[in-house]
Amino acid sequence: MSTLTERVAAGDRRALAQLISRIEREDPETQKILAELHASTSRASVVGITGAPGTGKSTLVNALARAFRKGTAGERPRTVGILALDPSSPFSGGAILGDRIRMRDLALDEGVFIRSMASRGCLGGLSRSTFPAVRALDAAGFEMILIETVGVGQDEVDVARQADTVIVVETPGLGDDIQALKAGVLEIADILAVNKADQPGADSAAESLRAMLDRNERTLDGWQPPIMQTVATTGKGVEELAAAVLSHRDHLARSGVGERRERERAERDLEERLRARLFEHWQTAGGNRLAEAAEKVARRECSPEEAVRALLDEGRLDKKPR
Amino acid sequence: MSTLTERVAAGDRRALAQLISRIEREDPETQKILAELHASTSRASVVGITGAPGTGKSTLVNALARAFRKGTAGERPRTVGILALDPSSPFSGGAILGDRIRMRDLALDEGVFIRSMASRGCLGGLSRSTFPAVRALDAAGFEMILIETVGVGQDEVDVARQADTVIVVETPGLGDDIQALKAGVLEIADILAVNKADQPGADSAAESLRAMLDRNERTLDGWQPPIMQTVATTGKGVEELAAAVLSHRDHLARSGVGERRERERAERDLEERLRARLFEHWQTAGGNRLAEAAEKVARRECSPEEAVRALLDEGRLDKKPR
Repeated sequence: MSTLTERVAAGDRRALAQLISRIEREDPETQKILAELHASTSRASVVGITGAPGTGKSTLVNALARAFRKGTAGERPRTVGILALDPSSPFSGGAILGDRIRMRDLALDEGVFIRSMASRGCLGGLSRSTFPAVRALDAAGFEMILIETVGVGQDEVDVARQADTVIVVETPGLGDDIQALKAGVLEIADILAVNKADQPGADSAAESLRAMLDRNERTLDGWQPPIMQTVATTGKGVEELAAAVLSHRDHLARSGVGERRERERAERDLEERLRARLFEHWQTAGGNRLAEAAEKVARRECSPEEAVRALLDEGRLDKKPR
Repeated sequence: MSTLTERVAAGDRRALAQLISRIEREDPETQKILAELHASTSRASVVGITGAPGTGKSTLVNALARAFRKGTAGERPRTVGILALDPSSPFSGGAILGDRIRMRDLALDEGVFIRSMASRGCLGGLSRSTFPAVRALDAAGFEMILIETVGVGQDEVDVARQADTVIVVETPGLGDDIQALKAGVLEIADILAVNKADQPGADSAAESLRAMLDRNERTLDGWQPPIMQTVATTGKGVEELAAAVLSHRDHLARSGVGERRERERAERDLEERLRARLFEHWQTAGGNRLAEAAEKVARRECSPEEAVRALLDEGRLDKKPR
């Protein structure tokens, strides 16, 4: 056991911050530490919060964290880890002054750990460090882990797959352009929040979301996604949203869906790891002739399909093993 | 040579449509057909057009296609293939009536091929069929291939990597929320278009984009991204935008950057293919015990790191070959 492992497992915040930094720079040592921490994980609820820019998502994450800390709606207070993958999030530094002030009390709370996982000017590759960071937060004892992401694209789907509960945030005012985008994002929603619900059109937004959900062919695993109306800036509806998250958590536990998803996540994760390792092995087995082959493909001397066949023969891994 | 190969290479539109449909449903036969078509490719210019919803991107793609068809700015007319990966694009069916009318003339033009690659309600995985579809359009003789995508996330970056020229579309009115997002997207821009430039603030939007570009640390490969002002609905500035695309094409050819990018693309593509094949081989070599291992990981009986080590031993591919 490395000392860092022990310190993280004991909930040491500085150790946790160090570990996440190492994860971000893909320090190979983290593999060992995360393996050691594995047995200490699985107690956290991982909540993905996603939505287009301008939906007030960050303020909602903020308010939600506060609700979990207070332990509203008859629930006990819980510790909260926040991972911000949204480059426009105040947690990620994209804050206007008001946001920073609003989050100061959270940042000073010992039961809250806030971390931005986005590196500006570098899209993609976020989710690779997200999953290990979630494991680290979980092992350190944080009970609710909130992941804030921007609501479009593949990163989104990857993050959603790692969450137990996905909240999709919408607003009354969004136009038809955005509506069309939602179809895909809605599929991953366990809970819908119509934020800025004090603006005109909140009810009709909620209704059209309901209609879209009803058309949805997604397997719901026995769960009907509730549509919550919130005003993150005043806190209106936020307790109810926090209660909905905990109620989804209960549903996952009772129905066995949570366990199934956990297995599926583990399987996808193992597959990813295997793919990476197999490729590394192919490279070290003297098969690193990729650049040369690419040159030939680019010159149209052979097709990529032919090149791959040739490369696998050279690496000898294409042969049936013994 | 299959008949479909010959028909696509001869520019037969129905054959092309069939091939792309097969690509979308990942018919294994397409591998062979694309390999046969490989020698007929590489003449097309692949242009990625990206931007947030509401920037008028689709209308701009439309206008740009028309400009290439007319052969404006002293250039000869060119054939155009359009791949719409944006679920809100009128090309993808998310059209309001006006859009449909505007694109009718394009749809009837024999020199234009329009295809939506998005399947609604299924985010992610788009780019996997995009690259083969580009190859098919290229082999069928389409000279300008326009790929329309939504401007956030990993799909974006993947598509941009496959394009020769990336146009990032902005509008004067976008708020600070969107500004923060741009940092990453700007890095992939070869050309910036401030669309809806008849709205107030177009000049200052162009100026702030210029300032952001100047702060950018990206290797520009000797190309200074121009910032064009367009009004897609009236066609204002669209000829100039088309000319900028062709000028970037010339730059790529003259500087050798185009060839280098082609090699890099081929290398990434080969790597992808190798990873997939190596994993398939691992599975068929009796190593398909993933589900069982995932179960153990989910139960915290072993860490994923340990599971992968065990799985590679079982699959025998972790051993040094011979």
